[in-house]
Amino acid sequence: MLMALSTWCDVEAYLERSRSIILPIGSMEQHGPTGLIGTDAICPTVIAEAAASDDPDILVGPTFSVGCAQHHLGFPGSMTLRPSTMIAAIVDWSASLRRHGFERIYWINGHGGNIATIAAAFSEVYAERSFAGADSSIPALTMKQRNWWDLPGVMNTCRHLHPKHEGSHATASEVAVTYAAHPEQVRNIELTPKVAPSGGFTDADDYRRRFADGRIGSDPTQATVAAGEEIIKVAAKALREDFLAFANRAG
Amino acid sequence: MLMALSTWCDVEAYLERSRSIILPIGSMEQHGPTGLIGTDAICPTVIAEAAASDDPDILVGPTFSVGCAQHHLGFPGSMTLRPSTMIAAIVDWSASLRRHGFERIYWINGHGGNIATIAAAFSEVYAERSFAGADSSIPALTMKQRNWWDLPGVMNTCRHLHPKHEGSHATASEVAVTYAAHPEQVRNIELTPKVAPSGGFTDADDYRRRFADGRIGSDPTQATVAAGEEIIKVAAKALREDFLAFANRAG
Amino acid sequence: MLMALSTWCDVEAYLERSRSIILPIGSMEQHGPTGLIGTDAICPTVIAEAAASDDPDILVGPTFSVGCAQHHLGFPGSMTLRPSTMIAAIVDWSASLRRHGFERIYWINGHGGNIATIAAAFSEVYAERSFAGADSSIPALTMKQRNWWDLPGVMNTCRHLHPKHEGSHATASEVAVTYAAHPEQVRNIELTPKVAPSGGFTDADDYRRRFADGRIGSDPTQATVAAGEEIIKVAAKALREDFLAFANRAG
Amino acid sequence: MLMALSTWCDVEAYLERSRSIILPIGSMEQHGPTGLIGTDAICPTVIAEAAASDDPDILVGPTFSVGCAQHHLGFPGSMTLRPSTMIAAIVDWSASLRRHGFERIYWINGHGGNIATIAAAFSEVYAERSFAGADSSIPALTMKQRNWWDLPGVMNTCRHLHPKHEGSHATASEVAVTYAAHPEQVRNIELTPKVAPSGGFTDADDYRRRFADGRIGSDPTQATVAAGEEIIKVAAKALREDFLAFANRAG
Amino acid sequence: MLMALSTWCDVEAYLERSRSIILPIGSMEQHGPTGLIGTDAICPTVIAEAAASDDPDILVGPTFSVGCAQHHLGFPGSMTLRPSTMIAAIVDWSASLRRHGFERIYWINGHGGNIATIAAAFSEVYAERSFAGADSSIPALTMKQRNWWDLPGVMNTCRHLHPKHEGSHATASEVAVTYAAHPEQVRNIELTPKVAPSGGFTDADDYRRRFADGRIGSDPTQATVAAGEEIIKVAAKALREDFLAFANRAG
Amino acid sequence: MLMALSTWCDVEAYLERSRSIILPIGSMEQHGPTGLIGTDAICPTVIAEAAASDDPDILVGPTFSVGCAQHHLGFPGSMTLRPSTMIAAIVDWSASLRRHGFERIYWINGHGGNIATIAAAFSEVYAERSFAGADSSIPALTMKQRNWWDLPGVMNTCRHLHPKHEGSHATASEVAVTYAAHPEQVRNIELTPKVAPSGGFTDADDYRRRFADGRIGSDPTQATVAAGEEIIKVAAKALREDFLAFANRAG
Repeated sequence: MLMALSTWCDVEAYLERSRSIILPIGSMEQHGPTGLIGTDAICPTVIAEAAASDDPDILVGPTFSVGCAQHHLGFPGSMTLRPSTMIAAIVDWSASLRRHGFERIYWINGHGGNIATIAAAFSEVYAERSFAGADSSIPALTMKQRNWWDLPGVMNTCRHLHPKHEGSHATASEVAVTYAAHPEQVRNIELTPKVAPSGGFTDADDYRRRFADGRIGSDPTQATVAAGEEIIKVAAKALREDFLAFANRAG
Repeated sequence: MLMALSTWCDVEAYLERSRSIILPIGSMEQHGPTGLIGTDAICPTVIAEAAASDDPDILVGPTFSVGCAQHHLGFPGSMTLRPSTMIAAIVDWSASLRRHGFERIYWINGHGGNIATIAAAFSEVYAERSFAGADSSIPALTMKQRNWWDLPGVMNTCRHLHPKHEGSHATASEVAVTYAAHPEQVRNIELTPKVAPSGGFTDADDYRRRFADGRIGSDPTQATVAAGEEIIKVAAKALREDFLAFANRAG
Repeated sequence: MLMALSTWCDVEAYLERSRSIILPIGSMEQHGPTGLIGTDAICPTVIAEAAASDDPDILVGPTFSVGCAQHHLGFPGSMTLRPSTMIAAIVDWSASLRRHGFERIYWINGHGGNIATIAAAFSEVYAERSFAGADSSIPALTMKQRNWWDLPGVMNTCRHLHPKHEGSHATASEVAVTYAAHPEQVRNIELTPKVAPSGGFTDADDYRRRFADGRIGSDPTQATVAAGEEIIKVAAKALREDFLAFANRAG
Repeated sequence: MLMALSTWCDVEAYLERSRSIILPIGSMEQHGPTGLIGTDAICPTVIAEAAASDDPDILVGPTFSVGCAQHHLGFPGSMTLRPSTMIAAIVDWSASLRRHGFERIYWINGHGGNIATIAAAFSEVYAERSFAGADSSIPALTMKQRNWWDLPGVMNTCRHLHPKHEGSHATASEVAVTYAAHPEQVRNIELTPKVAPSGGFTDADDYRRRFADGRIGSDPTQATVAAGEEIIKVAAKALREDFLAFANRAG
Repeated sequence: MLMALSTWCDVEAYLERSRSIILPIGSMEQHGPTGLIGTDAICPTVIAEAAASDDPDILVGPTFSVGCAQHHLGFPGSMTLRPSTMIAAIVDWSASLRRHGFERIYWINGHGGNIATIAAAFSEVYAERSFAGADSSIPALTMKQRNWWDLPGVMNTCRHLHPKHEGSHATASEVAVTYAAHPEQVRNIELTPKVAPSGGFTDADDYRRRFADGRIGSDPTQATVAAGEEIIKVAAKALREDFLAFANRAG
Repeated sequence: MLMALSTWCDVEAYLERSRSIILPIGSMEQHGPTGLIGTDAICPTVIAEAAASDDPDILVGPTFSVGCAQHHLGFPGSMTLRPSTMIAAIVDWSASLRRHGFERIYWINGHGGNIATIAAAFSEVYAERSFAGADSSIPALTMKQRNWWDLPGVMNTCRHLHPKHEGSHATASEVAVTYAAHPEQVRNIELTPKVAPSGGFTDADDYRRRFADGRIGSDPTQATVAAGEEIIKVAAKALREDFLAFANRAG
């Protein structure tokens, strides 16, 4: 069940069944010469929609599509929020849902660069109630983030599909997922070097200097539509189970 | 050309042709018992994608999907940013694009409640350079917002399709556009009263008290897939022309 | 009744009679070679004071004198708040009055460039209560903004007095109002061109490049003290009626 | 010379003569049963206008009228900014004037409760350039605040006029200044106790509990129009001299 | 009793005895060629720890070590918070302690440049409750700041020890206190000029230009370990008495 | 070399040798009935000071002592910054050091709850330069965080010393480090249960409900002064090597 495609009456009815919701969260940033700028938003969205498909007990909210990607700004098309802006936005999204009676929010994340700021935003949300004390009138909220590639079984599938050169940015697996979602966007070009270099980075200029075409450690030319479909299937099943367990947990 | 489905190399090549971009901006909020929560994000996105389809000179960026909708929070599923958060986010989106050499940003808007805050955000962006003075190193940026229903010819089409009871929230026309985009979501139910009341409002409780099912002044049961397709066609053509004129303007 | 010239006991007594207040809001910005920098603050202040004069049921608070005028910073003497600062200040002014039991605030505005940010600030104020939910302990507040030139009858009067070349910035009518308020400041000089050019603008440098002496579309040399007095009379009467209707409205 | 009553051309010409400006800064807050809510804004404004009268080398900008008065919110009509908002606003006012080439800003203050936040705002302004380093492109700005009662000779005059029970809030001297400025507002009522209690305070409730009618340590029934005129004369002369010395100082 | 060296059970027990706490607040900034960068944090910390030593009725919290020192940034090692950041941090520290039932916070300050921002932060804290009104659920908090050199008897001691050239920055007395605390850091070097110049300043470049080695008006070569021990003894005794009087005050 | 105990001349000389600095960062929060509230600030400070002792090529700045600990606010004495405040403070600390020519900052962290917000703050710092573009005048800065227990060899030492029930909050190892630093604070009491429960948490009330005495998964009664000394020795050596490698890295 997708919230954007529901009426408020649908959501009201859902809240009778469940107080939990999934929010995909991604980024708009370069993913090398063969990967799409929307990759990190597309992956968790596609997986969440597959998990929720035809299931009245799983509600997927809108995708938080622009995240923390300052280090990619050396490559055209990359966009970022400052972490302080992202925290403010996550606070507002969470407060909106809390107002309706949602008690548990499951953020399915598609971008490593978001992890820290999402966690900081959770603390910002929790702090309001922690400062107010035990008898506060602010309803409690439980939030969880999970990277789609950390869902049970997904990494094994990815390693099986791409035993070598998965890398850490513009990976064959994430590119495959986007190709499965948008087969018309498959890019069949050679990359040089075949496997991108690895390492750390600081700001956008530093990143561009180190990683000439944007990839880190990966060979995404391995990506295929079929591999992407396989990953989506495994990840969607795992997300469904993980979310329902989260939703059913007491307190 | 959609930025989310492009590589950074595609965007780099686009910037050789054009320094302008379209950004759809909407809201996640109730649209009455027959309208979708995502209506205001879906409409400008669908229209922008239709305008950009197969045109290498029109680039559509990601949709800013949660906007200013505090007055709808009395209805489940509605989400909002505080205006101050929305300004911060628009500043960051704009600064990201400016970094890549974009000089003109065209925001195609789907939500009346966003208009003021978008305009305020433009002033926030411009103020940085205005404070710095004429010899600032900050590149100039030109921003424009346009509601999709204000595009040339669109209102006439809407009035022709729904000569009565268009209303101002959860209108037949916007609901029709979403039905055209998502025909499986058509809701065939009766509404009582057939035409919703009209008037002003302040906060969410005030709104809910005045507008029992969320609509203002409208009878969206008139909405059809065919009407939506007609509106999209007219709006997309108008947007394409308006954007290209904007993009080609000097300075 | 002017709040700045009242004691707290006077205001306490007023609150027994009324829960509504008028706040003039303007700008400090260039108004061409014959217009005063304070024009946009002077106009609503003079009109509000005329409306409230000798009327114990109309309370006028302090004038919010520096508004959103980043686009005028190319001309000496212009001052601006960033929209985010202005929102914070309006939130604080509103919260102060709410604390005393004011339930309705009528902002009489003198500057087109303020409209969007005032509206955004209203949403910021309302959002606090909308997030908190229906059983919040935050008192409800109703806010309204009205440009003085949009008061019933005023535009007709202006058009009658200056049938041509009213323009949109440094208009004959607003200059006339300031001349009526400060007759010693009448400037009798020629302007070239007689009628200023029209058009849009972005930041301060762009504005100055387009509008060489600051005016937009206007010929303010038409302004006279007599015309200003006429406009003030009409506007004050309309404001009095509009405010009292607003004040007497339930809920 | 008053900036609100000048054109931008007047200010441009002034900047050829001087790079310094006076800004009155006050508060809207209760001043006991005989004092006006606008007292702290009226006093520095009246004194600054008297100092600048007929002098083309003294420019007085708009009055910053609502300041830091959270402790007075227990009395109707009092208004406040949070200090963080006030800092943001002072930063914006200062940056606006700096853009025009002003190099020295003299804040003439009317409210003890503002002193700390004004000083903090100065540091906020200076910090921008201090972080940037010596070769920054940000122009240097010198700011000074002075309470009108601390101008040379003023306190002596006040003590001479009101040798006893001047107190520290709603003093006879400040009330006298406002009576001189607005003789129609003189309030001839008895106060009980004749002399208000003294002491410290924290928030608004604490303040109201300690100071039943709002005064601290004062007997403002001594205030007369004649005393006010005398104080204004002395203070205006001192301000003129102090400002011109400030304006003429190198660097 | 030092909070950093206590368990939560110790603090819980303390709260049975007292609702008051001391927080040292300082700065990290240059103190001339013979003074330590940590001087302003070390002094109030050492004095507070001496005051609290072996006394179960005096609790000393952590030292707020980096304060408002933008004007010192021209000298290596100096650090600063913007005042707006410092206000936010003081608000959070205060809210944390308020949550536990602390009702009175005594800030013992070591840096003149902090005074204004600390006072502004107090207003920021109080404003929250002042806006909310008398029946707010926010507990009342009483905060006080005191410079260690303003404690009863301290200035007399300093003047007795250093009758001449105490100055106002990098004073012999504060340097002596740090030497007493860290005898291994005594610097026996000549300074030229022996007594530093005096005067005002704005930003860091202005400061460095005026005060070549960082001192203002002082000759800190007078500082000795013995003098520092004497000052600490007198100040600790005075702080103990002042704090206990503060802690025992009603309301 | 400790910056708080250095003069600005010392730091100036250090900058000739090195452009890198260590900053300890911790928290003030409960650590169970036997652990000190300052544990997470004490550990990295003690280790950094041991690493820097007598080494002119290692400079240790002030300890950032209050961090992100909203979840501990249910236990008296715990203090927190909101993540947004902490980001602002880290931005200011970093900008201060950058002003002096520091190019690399090594944050040695003592609190798991800080990790996310420190990383978010790094992105906030980097974003400024990433937005500005490659030819920005903002100097580049490289920042790294490292938990002291993640330094090479430390975890092995801890496991060897406490093979069982190390847990994740109020661990035997961190308590041992504080006991080594403050032997007079050793608490010899029994804890029930001997080993605390494990699990996740959200806000302060949730945390206190789950972890009755504050510990998570640990038995800190194993902690001894001798174990703490061993850990400090191993960690200080590892930090020294890790920092010097960081400091010597190009770019």
